[in-house]
Amino acid sequence: MEDTLSLVLFSGTDDKLHAAGTLAAGAAAMGRPVNVLLQYWALDAFRAAAIDADHGLAFDSIRPGTRQPPAGSRAIPWLETFRMAKELGEMSIVACSGSLEVLGIIPGELDPIVDGTGGIASFLLAADGGQIIFI
Amino acid sequence: MEDTLSLVLFSGTDDKLHAAGTLAAGAAAMGRPVNVLLQYWALDAFRAAAIDADHGLAFDSIRPGTRQPPAGSRAIPWLETFRMAKELGEMSIVACSGSLEVLGIIPGELDPIVDGTGGIASFLLAADGGQIIFI
Amino acid sequence: MEDTLSLVLFSGTDDKLHAAGTLAAGAAAMGRPVNVLLQYWALDAFRAAAIDADHGLAFDSIRPGTRQPPAGSRAIPWLETFRMAKELGEMSIVACSGSLEVLGIIPGELDPIVDGTGGIASFLLAADGGQIIFI
Repeated sequence: MEDTLSLVLFSGTDDKLHAAGTLAAGAAAMGRPVNVLLQYWALDAFRAAAIDADHGLAFDSIRPGTRQPPAGSRAIPWLETFRMAKELGEMSIVACSGSLEVLGIIPGELDPIVDGTGGIASFLLAADGGQIIFI
Repeated sequence: MEDTLSLVLFSGTDDKLHAAGTLAAGAAAMGRPVNVLLQYWALDAFRAAAIDADHGLAFDSIRPGTRQPPAGSRAIPWLETFRMAKELGEMSIVACSGSLEVLGIIPGELDPIVDGTGGIASFLLAADGGQIIFI
Repeated sequence: MEDTLSLVLFSGTDDKLHAAGTLAAGAAAMGRPVNVLLQYWALDAFRAAAIDADHGLAFDSIRPGTRQPPAGSRAIPWLETFRMAKELGEMSIVACSGSLEVLGIIPGELDPIVDGTGGIASFLLAADGGQIIFI
């Protein structure tokens, strides 16, 4: 549908996962269908064994003089925003089959918040005329 | 409106700020409304005390063999492109209230080019059916 | 056209180039026109002298505990996916004239898969009402 929000979630740091979760929750709260495709380091972050770990911050945070989060990156509630998005509306989280293969991850390793696996073609088809955001 | 260009500006390095400013100025010159939402390291870069500093280049530039900007990252005129976008057309720059909180930045610290603060819901609403780009 | 997929390709690591190539090939296979604008480190990666090199992985991969590609980053077939996209459908790859200037690269240094040079205005015009993705 035209009002679908589609996210290619590639990055695996806590700050970018938070930015993605906030967009997903915001769109879900507005009644928009949300499709998330997990690739590479986001896929890695959604492994059950890794999802609660400290995933650090983006490279941009390293420059001297940058304001650091007073509560640290562990305090960034990205997983909670994704859980909230699922409660608020219609959101699917799909693991990219190509990234699973490149990283040697099997679906059974993923956290149960991930709904299944799929490829880029079905993602683009579901995105339809709606917005696609790469994070 | 359908022709609005909405930018979630997350990154804080000079090269990505430049890429964002160029898109903003290009769209503004075409008469399109432009909405910029500053998050995390872009928000940090728009602090009055930081905006003229050297913000460095993206991690991708570090690989040996990469062509480096002969004039250095300080010569990348990203702030000028944002100022030009404001002169050319209708652009608003809004600080994300969630990122302000995570980084412990108060609105009074931001450069006057920032028009105000706001959340993801009003950003998505303003984006309407138009393009959203995450940088 | 409304079904055009436009990619601003900024990043130059093998994993992000792969993500971009997959989106381009997927859209081309669906009969959608694809426009790619090369900026900064993606532009650097498409230099003839650099295109076959190991471009490494995104910063996110560095965190301890991250699953590394068993076959390494050189095994990520990003260039093949771009070549496939060109065979499958209608894709143009354009070097951003602003980034050429900042990095001091001349068009003659680029791999022949690059179709030409251009600016942000013509890119936005060609994107029309279609999706724009920044990678």
